[in-house]
Amino acid sequence: MYGRYTQDLGTFAKDEAARLRLQEGDTPRPRRPSELLEYTQGRCAPCRVCALQCQRFLISKVGEDWVFLILLGLVMALVSWAMDFAIATCLQAQKWMYGGLDTNVLLQYMAWVTYPTVLITFSAGFTQILAPQAVGSGIPEMKTILRGVVLKEYLTLKTFVAKVIGLTCALGSGMPLGKEGPFVHIASMCAALLSRFLSLFGGFYENEARNIEMLAAACAVGVGCCFAAPIGGVLFSIEVTSTFFAVRNYWRGFLAATFSAFIFRVLAVWNKDEETITALFKTRFRLDFPFDLQELPAFAVIGIASGFGGALFVYLNRKIVQFMRRQKTINRFLMKKRLLFPALVTLIISTLTFPPGFGQFMAGQLTQKDTLVTLFDNQTWAKQGLSDEFEYLGILEAWRHPRSNVFVTLVVFILMKFWMSALATTIPVPCGAFMPVFVIGAAFGRLVGESMAAWFPDGIHTESNTYRIVPGGYAVVGAAALSGAVTHTVSTAVIVFELTGQISHILPVMIAVILANAVAQSLQPSLYDSIIRIKKLPYLPELGWGHHEKYNVRVEDIMVRDIRYVTLNCRYRDLQQVLHSTKMKNLPLVESAESMILLGSIERAQVGALLSNQLSPQRRLLTLRQKVLSEDGHRLSDSSIRFQISTEASSGTPARPALRKPLKPALKRVPSSPADSPPAGATDHTGIALKSLFCANSTAEPTEEEMILGDKMTPAEILEWEEQQLDQLVDFSSAKIDPAPFQLVEHTSLHKTHTIFSLLGLDHAFVTSIGRLVGMVSLKELRKAIEGSVTAKGVKVRPPLASFRDSTASTSDADTTALRQLWDRHQHHPMPREASPGGDDDDDTPKGQ
Amino acid sequence: MYGRYTQDLGTFAKDEAARLRLQEGDTPRPRRPSELLEYTQGRCAPCRVCALQCQRFLISKVGEDWVFLILLGLVMALVSWAMDFAIATCLQAQKWMYGGLDTNVLLQYMAWVTYPTVLITFSAGFTQILAPQAVGSGIPEMKTILRGVVLKEYLTLKTFVAKVIGLTCALGSGMPLGKEGPFVHIASMCAALLSRFLSLFGGFYENEARNIEMLAAACAVGVGCCFAAPIGGVLFSIEVTSTFFAVRNYWRGFLAATFSAFIFRVLAVWNKDEETITALFKTRFRLDFPFDLQELPAFAVIGIASGFGGALFVYLNRKIVQFMRRQKTINRFLMKKRLLFPALVTLIISTLTFPPGFGQFMAGQLTQKDTLVTLFDNQTWAKQGLSDEFEYLGILEAWRHPRSNVFVTLVVFILMKFWMSALATTIPVPCGAFMPVFVIGAAFGRLVGESMAAWFPDGIHTESNTYRIVPGGYAVVGAAALSGAVTHTVSTAVIVFELTGQISHILPVMIAVILANAVAQSLQPSLYDSIIRIKKLPYLPELGWGHHEKYNVRVEDIMVRDIRYVTLNCRYRDLQQVLHSTKMKNLPLVESAESMILLGSIERAQVGALLSNQLSPQRRLLTLRQKVLSEDGHRLSDSSIRFQISTEASSGTPARPALRKPLKPALKRVPSSPADSPPAGATDHTGIALKSLFCANSTAEPTEEEMILGDKMTPAEILEWEEQQLDQLVDFSSAKIDPAPFQLVEHTSLHKTHTIFSLLGLDHAFVTSIGRLVGMVSLKELRKAIEGSVTAKGVKVRPPLASFRDSTASTSDADTTALRQLWDRHQHHPMPREASPGGDDDDDTPKGQ
Repeated sequence: MYGRYTQDLGTFAKDEAARLRLQEGDTPRPRRPSELLEYTQGRCAPCRVCALQCQRFLISKVGEDWVFLILLGLVMALVSWAMDFAIATCLQAQKWMYGGLDTNVLLQYMAWVTYPTVLITFSAGFTQILAPQAVGSGIPEMKTILRGVVLKEYLTLKTFVAKVIGLTCALGSGMPLGKEGPFVHIASMCAALLSRFLSLFGGFYENEARNIEMLAAACAVGVGCCFAAPIGGVLFSIEVTSTFFAVRNYWRGFLAATFSAFIFRVLAVWNKDEETITALFKTRFRLDFPFDLQELPAFAVIGIASGFGGALFVYLNRKIVQFMRRQKTINRFLMKKRLLFPALVTLIISTLTFPPGFGQFMAGQLTQKDTLVTLFDNQTWAKQGLSDEFEYLGILEAWRHPRSNVFVTLVVFILMKFWMSALATTIPVPCGAFMPVFVIGAAFGRLVGESMAAWFPDGIHTESNTYRIVPGGYAVVGAAALSGAVTHTVSTAVIVFELTGQISHILPVMIAVILANAVAQSLQPSLYDSIIRIKKLPYLPELGWGHHEKYNVRVEDIMVRDIRYVTLNCRYRDLQQVLHSTKMKNLPLVESAESMILLGSIERAQVGALLSNQLSPQRRLLTLRQKVLSEDGHRLSDSSIRFQISTEASSGTPARPALRKPLKPALKRVPSSPADSPPAGATDHTGIALKSLFCANSTAEPTEEEMILGDKMTPAEILEWEEQQLDQLVDFSSAKIDPAPFQLVEHTSLHKTHTIFSLLGLDHAFVTSIGRLVGMVSLKELRKAIEGSVTAKGVKVRPPLASFRDSTASTSDADTTALRQLWDRHQHHPMPREASPGGDDDDDTPKGQ
Repeated sequence: MYGRYTQDLGTFAKDEAARLRLQEGDTPRPRRPSELLEYTQGRCAPCRVCALQCQRFLISKVGEDWVFLILLGLVMALVSWAMDFAIATCLQAQKWMYGGLDTNVLLQYMAWVTYPTVLITFSAGFTQILAPQAVGSGIPEMKTILRGVVLKEYLTLKTFVAKVIGLTCALGSGMPLGKEGPFVHIASMCAALLSRFLSLFGGFYENEARNIEMLAAACAVGVGCCFAAPIGGVLFSIEVTSTFFAVRNYWRGFLAATFSAFIFRVLAVWNKDEETITALFKTRFRLDFPFDLQELPAFAVIGIASGFGGALFVYLNRKIVQFMRRQKTINRFLMKKRLLFPALVTLIISTLTFPPGFGQFMAGQLTQKDTLVTLFDNQTWAKQGLSDEFEYLGILEAWRHPRSNVFVTLVVFILMKFWMSALATTIPVPCGAFMPVFVIGAAFGRLVGESMAAWFPDGIHTESNTYRIVPGGYAVVGAAALSGAVTHTVSTAVIVFELTGQISHILPVMIAVILANAVAQSLQPSLYDSIIRIKKLPYLPELGWGHHEKYNVRVEDIMVRDIRYVTLNCRYRDLQQVLHSTKMKNLPLVESAESMILLGSIERAQVGALLSNQLSPQRRLLTLRQKVLSEDGHRLSDSSIRFQISTEASSGTPARPALRKPLKPALKRVPSSPADSPPAGATDHTGIALKSLFCANSTAEPTEEEMILGDKMTPAEILEWEEQQLDQLVDFSSAKIDPAPFQLVEHTSLHKTHTIFSLLGLDHAFVTSIGRLVGMVSLKELRKAIEGSVTAKGVKVRPPLASFRDSTASTSDADTTALRQLWDRHQHHPMPREASPGGDDDDDTPKGQ
């Protein structure tokens, strides 16, 4: 992010300033349309004047951030609500079908199994055809995009449509899939599309930095309106997508997420689902004595167990994906029949959950939402003393099995759902894993809670046995802990408060979530980081919990020393060699091979453009023509005129249009610049040459003349000409150079390097020593170093790196030596323009004698 | 932060690595103590071995982050609890005194007024004497410290004691003062002291970067255990102290704050204050229908009004301080009698709140805590239909006045408390403003709520009139909104949920807080920023809500062009001139005045050290001795030996000990380095010289010989000698140079510059153009630029800056030209070592003809 947009922003700012200055000129006299209106002195005239002014005011406000954020919130609330409605309808349809066929078990089974299979297969096929980028969670991609990496096609309308429809079908099938990840992606696409749409009115939507800010806000909106949890949404999105967060942008997320959650819940009220705005999964635990202090160890156990469970889930999920990819026969087969895998998985899962079959042991007929509602239930399910006569009412019925008790059902549910969820989230449809994990966590919590209730039937607090244990509270804790462990976030705690509408269990939830995080983070990466690695997206691993060893590794240990560079006075042949010998995207530009003073960095594409420009057919043509013309002996050579013009252009009034768009390949620049400034007087005697230049300007259609002239050169001649061209010194004046690439020093610690890379979103940095280029560090090296030392635990502090250190001399010397060399060079080879120092003797006396 | 610690960290890491390697060597044979124990084959031997191993394990764990965080949480919980206890006792004592004297109003008044006056005066005096740094909130200072600025004496034990005792007295007086700011400060001091204490065991506590991370966590702990609100505490501290937040450090805050809040509440349970862990100000609003959708406009009104109120509070607070400072007579008087102002303010405020006097109209006898409890009460106070017979019970009694109604009481309370709080927070005692503002906001919310309840006695929802309006909910919303407006934070919303233990009003609270923030942020800086400005701490203003214009200002508009620099081949005289002509703390080091290629930056102190070293009496002595010795003609001159040694040292085995401590003035280096390496054979013939060198090594006690020799030079000779020395070329090899100071480009937008400065905590950056130094931007310029364009609203985009732009040439050219110059220089003056390019003609043909 840092080095790349420097130039763009500059250009942008300049254009913007010019535009604003023009606007400024407009504003003092805005009477033009109203002046016109005064001629039509109708009755409506004042109204129309007013309407016009309103319109102008509105358009001027469209560019404001808050308008954008509120619009985004509104759109996302509508999208979210519509999707929820569609998903509910789908699930209702399945239930209805299943219920209607209760005369025949086989038919029932067919209906139960076919329905989700068709939906999932359709979803997979649809996404595959329309936009394969819509597959999966979307959070890993958003994390990458927010780091500044440009992923193509990830924020387009096509992907949006694919994701919305694919997700609706996938969730409508009743598979254990989540929607929070896809919602983040959908909200981001919404923001991208909205900003493109609004840029038709205002002008501020093209800015890169601003877009990133808006995308960050959009992620918050996505989570926020998925759970109707604005605060938790903002925090979750920050934890999941950012490494460093600008507190400045905090309010954006809050504004958009709050508005979105508000509209989302208002829609529910208007739809008569609810009487007023309440939480999604409202709980009704008692407030006066939510839990006993002595229950805290049980909550801690839930936290620690969830930590292990979360790590296991991530591991399982990754192993399934890797197994699919590595088994070549399976892989080849699946690549051919892409829709077979989703169909197969859905078939297995839905067969196992078939309520009259195995599903009766795991509450198979409940949807995810119903499961959560029952798990957060206020009552105690286990039979105990007084409440022996407790009847499972309504949907609670599902958890009871005549031949076993609720513990068996819960255990079976947890075990089955665990691998099912891990498997289901690998299906190539738009889906997340948050909600399934959340449900499993709630079930686990409930299990612990019911056990506690069975163990202490009258509550722990012996003095007053009025306060029973509330297993529902344990379910809340378990849900927060397991989802926190899988995603490595703490803010799931806030999400459960907002989801349940009760904050009375704050301390148990916080303790469990923190413990779960501590355990999970020390075992496995987060689910999203795991997917990032599987998908091989550019990423930077986090420094672990205890990262002391990072303070001991330094840049000099990990940097690449043998790097290719471009010198200021190199020849085109050197450029060619450099391009062939390295694949770096940014090449350092140094003053000379001796001094190695870093002047800037130049993009690979720019170097390529310089080269191809030098060897372009146009130039060859020109040379040829020049030769032909000089044979006539009557005219000045074209090339001199051409280069006079370009020299003039760069010193006096510059060729602005070309420089304004520095991203365009330099190829097009050379012909266009003389085309801009011909009227100086050159038209008189360079008629044909300029005409050909004009023609050459349209590179797409080579003129006949060009063809003829081009043909006149034999391949050998061309080769000779090219060799000759390659020996020329490079003219960098047309290339776009980043004048301040990011620099590190050899001493910089790995910890600091990591911080700087994530802060600024760098993908490479040059290592300098007193201005001299000595190496380069890219994301790859950093990644290796961090993972290398993260896996090697304990006392072994710098496992693969120590060898480097020993091979090089102590850096304190190196530093001094470098400075001294530079200094000596100055002493012995004063620059030609510098006054020869008269005091050399004074200096040499103490040194050289 | 960026440039400054680079070197330190490097050195630190190196030492650390060495230390660890030594440790590593130790660990494989840890049997030493147990081997010894085997001789004493007593019964306890296994126990003692075990204990020893445990001890060793514990000591190794002491360095872990989580141990530190838990210890911090524990300590802060204890401190917080003890202070709360003391404050409650103080307040109880006042109540008791006031209650016991109810026979005589005058005596009652005396007691009511004297008690707080004495406490506040003591607090002010105590703080003034022990540590004046403890005065005030502490959040502004912490914000500055977390930016990387070192404020002296702010984190010492003395300040800690002063703050704790001063705050206890101040809050015990019953004045409208808060404790959240001081708690942040206290927690930070706790962390600093704790890390210094723990560094006696582990070695990782000296690291600068880590300390900053720990301080950030400590701030969270401070807020968290002040309100028993871990989540809100973490978020509030982030919003208030950070500009960019590392998500990596998120868990630190949560862990410490949760543990702290947990212990804090557990202490309450053990003290039998509570039956179990609950919220501090628990509310009992109904859960099933917390509020009607149609009440939302009222909540929005609270938000907007709070926004204006918050801005007014900040303005009032600042104006009071400025008035005190500007009125010279007042100022002079107050400076003389420092304790008069606190006493006077306390006298006025306590007189006005005297319950039998004016206090009866503003619930004067209630403490802050009681006020909040009553304001968050579940019942409706205003008389309406059915509940006409409602009786004010217990402490609610205070709000009733026989001759007026509750509305009058509330309005008087709000108005009086508003200016009282604004005034009271200017008293020079440790105090914050959060809690008073929170109370005022709650009262305002209550007022609106009671009005709504009076307006719609049967609730708004006409279909079912079972749901009345809950004025307590309005109070919660008002409290969050006003405190959010004053501090410019959104997380006050989370704090109120945790304080009240209910989250049912989430949407009204969020809407009100966001609106309040929007209004307040567009009118005034936050209270903490306002204090930062008053105290003139180094700060960087935030970019406002709509900061479009920031994209149009560029570094070239705001940078200082005329900067002093040090060239690589300069003389000591130049250094002297530079030091005299500028006050910059970091001087750029450039290759030469012609090339201006930036090589690094050198600290002012280093330059000073170089100079004073060159002109040191030791060197003069040496010269003199050399002269004396060379007059003998029998020996080699000392200086040659000396310099041979130092040259050797810098090329071969270097003078490590000196280079390892680059912060020490170079002054001491020269004598110590020959002292390290005399046995080479120089002892033979440089007996006296070396002896004197050894003596010179102990600079504190000049030997007699030295005195004599020093006296031998006349002042004129000294002057001549110094002039001669100043003409020598500077030897930079002993100076500490930061080889990669932060660089910007002329194009960089103000927005990006601001981001980078706050991200990296810079206080200056050099502006380069293709490696050439062209200017410098420091915090001052940035501040000016941001505030200049923030105050000028609307269309006027770049008010004082436009002039700069027009005076300079277009930068696109400037860039190209600079490159061209550099390139030309290379063309025409090839470096002597470079092979003279044979293809020059090829290049010149198109260019020069």
